Amino acid sequence: MLRQILRRAVARRAVVSTVIKNEAVRRIHCGRKCCSSKVELTSVRYPGVKRGNYAQLSDKHVQHFQSILPKERVITDLSDVESYNVDWLGMVRGASQVVLKPKTTEEVSAILKYCNAENLAVCPQGGNTGLVGGSVPVFDEVIISTSLMNKIISLDDLSGVLICQAGCILENLDSYLSDRGFMMPLDLGAKGTCQIGGNVSTNAGGIRLIRYGSLQGSVLGIEAVKADGEIIDCLSSLKKDNTGFHLKHLFIGSEGTLGIVTKVAVHCPPSPKAVNVAFLGLEKFDDVLHTYRDARHGLGEILSSCEMMDALSLDAATTNLKLQRPIGEFPFYMLIETSGSNGAHDEEKLNKFLEASMANGVVLDGTVASEPSRIKLMWNLREGITEGLLHDGYVYKYDISLPHASFYAIIPELQTRLPKDKVGRICGYGHVGDGNLHLNITSPEFDHSILDIIEPFVFEWTSKLKGSVSAEHGIGFKKTQYIHYSKSKSSLDLMVNIKKLMDPKGILNPYKVLPAQH
Amino acid sequence: MLRQILRRAVARRAVVSTVIKNEAVRRIHCGRKCCSSKVELTSVRYPGVKRGNYAQLSDKHVQHFQSILPKERVITDLSDVESYNVDWLGMVRGASQVVLKPKTTEEVSAILKYCNAENLAVCPQGGNTGLVGGSVPVFDEVIISTSLMNKIISLDDLSGVLICQAGCILENLDSYLSDRGFMMPLDLGAKGTCQIGGNVSTNAGGIRLIRYGSLQGSVLGIEAVKADGEIIDCLSSLKKDNTGFHLKHLFIGSEGTLGIVTKVAVHCPPSPKAVNVAFLGLEKFDDVLHTYRDARHGLGEILSSCEMMDALSLDAATTNLKLQRPIGEFPFYMLIETSGSNGAHDEEKLNKFLEASMANGVVLDGTVASEPSRIKLMWNLREGITEGLLHDGYVYKYDISLPHASFYAIIPELQTRLPKDKVGRICGYGHVGDGNLHLNITSPEFDHSILDIIEPFVFEWTSKLKGSVSAEHGIGFKKTQYIHYSKSKSSLDLMVNIKKLMDPKGILNPYKVLPAQH
Repeated sequence: MLRQILRRAVARRAVVSTVIKNEAVRRIHCGRKCCSSKVELTSVRYPGVKRGNYAQLSDKHVQHFQSILPKERVITDLSDVESYNVDWLGMVRGASQVVLKPKTTEEVSAILKYCNAENLAVCPQGGNTGLVGGSVPVFDEVIISTSLMNKIISLDDLSGVLICQAGCILENLDSYLSDRGFMMPLDLGAKGTCQIGGNVSTNAGGIRLIRYGSLQGSVLGIEAVKADGEIIDCLSSLKKDNTGFHLKHLFIGSEGTLGIVTKVAVHCPPSPKAVNVAFLGLEKFDDVLHTYRDARHGLGEILSSCEMMDALSLDAATTNLKLQRPIGEFPFYMLIETSGSNGAHDEEKLNKFLEASMANGVVLDGTVASEPSRIKLMWNLREGITEGLLHDGYVYKYDISLPHASFYAIIPELQTRLPKDKVGRICGYGHVGDGNLHLNITSPEFDHSILDIIEPFVFEWTSKLKGSVSAEHGIGFKKTQYIHYSKSKSSLDLMVNIKKLMDPKGILNPYKVLPAQH
Repeated sequence: MLRQILRRAVARRAVVSTVIKNEAVRRIHCGRKCCSSKVELTSVRYPGVKRGNYAQLSDKHVQHFQSILPKERVITDLSDVESYNVDWLGMVRGASQVVLKPKTTEEVSAILKYCNAENLAVCPQGGNTGLVGGSVPVFDEVIISTSLMNKIISLDDLSGVLICQAGCILENLDSYLSDRGFMMPLDLGAKGTCQIGGNVSTNAGGIRLIRYGSLQGSVLGIEAVKADGEIIDCLSSLKKDNTGFHLKHLFIGSEGTLGIVTKVAVHCPPSPKAVNVAFLGLEKFDDVLHTYRDARHGLGEILSSCEMMDALSLDAATTNLKLQRPIGEFPFYMLIETSGSNGAHDEEKLNKFLEASMANGVVLDGTVASEPSRIKLMWNLREGITEGLLHDGYVYKYDISLPHASFYAIIPELQTRLPKDKVGRICGYGHVGDGNLHLNITSPEFDHSILDIIEPFVFEWTSKLKGSVSAEHGIGFKKTQYIHYSKSKSSLDLMVNIKKLMDPKGILNPYKVLPAQH
């Protein structure tokens, strides 16, 4: 059957000359800031978290901010401030009274220098698309929004190094690059809203890490402002630069707690000339792993994504969002993408790989697309799962890294532990190529007795397997008490000491990343 | 002409099923430690460098070391210690009286804990193949050799993650992986001697960074021991792990000044099924850049190396080492390597690229090889340059990163500045794909008047172009006074503060990386 499908697909196939991701990725960020006032204040929902001994915002402070920035970039109207106080999932809500919108590094520096001197806590905010409550204030922190720092500074059309301000939206950067033969090395669902500064600060992973690596490798340089306003210029655009400690990595993934990233230099790969996506059906999880191994060795350098979904995950997209399933029903599905410089070669590799996978019975069914519209439909299924799950009611979301051998075992384990009459769906999907599982449990509404069965069980399970309790979403506000499941005491102590060194008053994004007891 | 050569080459071509680098890379590390006693002591050659206020080694210390390690791993016989005191280039020579050879992390921890308490300075040493005097003592530091920490701990044959001790030799790791369908993501001339711990500590670059990225991206986890003996366990083998600050990067490239790397987890790509190398002749440097651009876009994902040599560089290998030139004489040469999963596809891409490059007159001549023996001959030429230059007499060596547009301009500039009757060769070669130029000037013997013309001119030139004064060799002992040409004062201040935080007594690899005035 696959061969017939393949033949049809091949007949329709054409070289895709432009980057198709912009269209292909459906935005999960639905801009639900409108409902912010319904969200309980974080200080109420989490009464155990105590406000630090920071100054309260006063008129004097606002007046000083207005001496640094034009008045219209010092937002104090509470109805305008409100949308910056709430995360898009509606999980957390701060009570900041002011949003500052600098346009330059020097403005960020002046703001931080003043806040540090005045002991005012600040919350840096990019596109506010995070999933762990890291980008909104917990109490009344001054919000520094990077949204107006959106200038592209340069693109070296030989090396592919892009230098831009932190507030550039990922999708805009990708479009800019696409017109010039390059692409961003990362891609994720929130692309249309998230900002590169936030991506870098959270070390965002996404769907093509398997091919283009992590931001720790792609980001060549960073300019950041420390808590005291000092500008750290590590904005190298060089691929090789071994002159001292590699300080930029302190700012990649530290979620704005060590400094505010103001500019980045990113190494961008050339756009692929051909993109193909295969959507496959499989019987069991072992077959998923088998297929991943075969794809890695058979597709080699053209493999650009390797995703898996179990039946209940895909069902969240097909049933709840009425999206069409491209193949029959199977216990497991995979979405495998290739990106290469020669369409005919890539097709040949993909066909050979799929024919072998079908011949040995590992893949039961599949379809292949190379047209942007069909590729988009397939990616819609994978990326629609997040939103589809929300239709079930409440979603208990986990983003964990696990060794491949134990990648899926937690799902059947939870199925035996959780009461069938109370939970809706226990499902898993994610970036199998990166060992990154998105584990989701749904119930009609939030139920503490369910949560108590899941936590800390999920974290203990992950820890025993030397996994990560946060693969790509970060720690933010919501996971600080779980970080010790993935980090040793000596590592945590060193983190705390580095934090004290770089931000002695702790004004930068407080209550985030590091556990409160430290 | 190229087409004829290509046809012949294609006829001979066969898929190369194993990694050929082991054979292909000629070792430049010639083990010249025998001549160590002729090397002037660093304390004599550099009288401006003052010994820190550290304790002197006493019998009591040696006895304590013998309580931590078996006696045979505490080397005090000065004739045995001597080879650890001198770097292989014979540039620097320390006066250590003891070499310790731990086998486990716990032993390293016990040694450092004691040295820190006793205020004994230490010098960590891997394969001692560095080029900037970073791996030997400056005065009488205790040498901690990682050479017996050479255990491979695990290889995940699905994800390709290798975990091993720091003292494993790069080539041994690559051979081990090759038998299992994987390869190390880095390769360099000193492969047969250098150790992975040293590679990581110096953030080694090498000849395939263009394809597999830097160690900052490939190293997934590190275990290191701090100056006070505390073990920092960041030995994650996960591709995605966003749980707190990414501490491992503090140890990558800090040259053993923040901690001693004891174990690493490296993400290894699958071995290529086919390797091809093209050796090309070109008229001018602009054509080199043109060819690099065309290779990046035309060869795309299979491009695994892009090297350039000017005529005088290649001549150092052909004339001084009597190696055979595979094509006629040209002002510039390039070595372009592809590695892919399908030999026929790769050949087709390479032929198409080369035919276009010849048709538009950018490439004047070329030859292509796919057999390991012929590939080896071509790489020998590129890698033989270093040794070939030594035959001229004295070599003034620089390893700089520059923007592509200004990559080669420093060579003609130096040709006008330096006196023709005193210098032998002023030449440049290197990793053009990474913007990394190896600039070399030779003279019959060391001449201070030549050095005064070159320095600080080379560093000022590099700094003005926002280049790096050390692309991949690091700072070590020899370049501490030049680091400010590539790093801002605020960055240097932060480095100094991090050093003070992690090693308050400064016992770890003193006189290295950071400038003395700090």
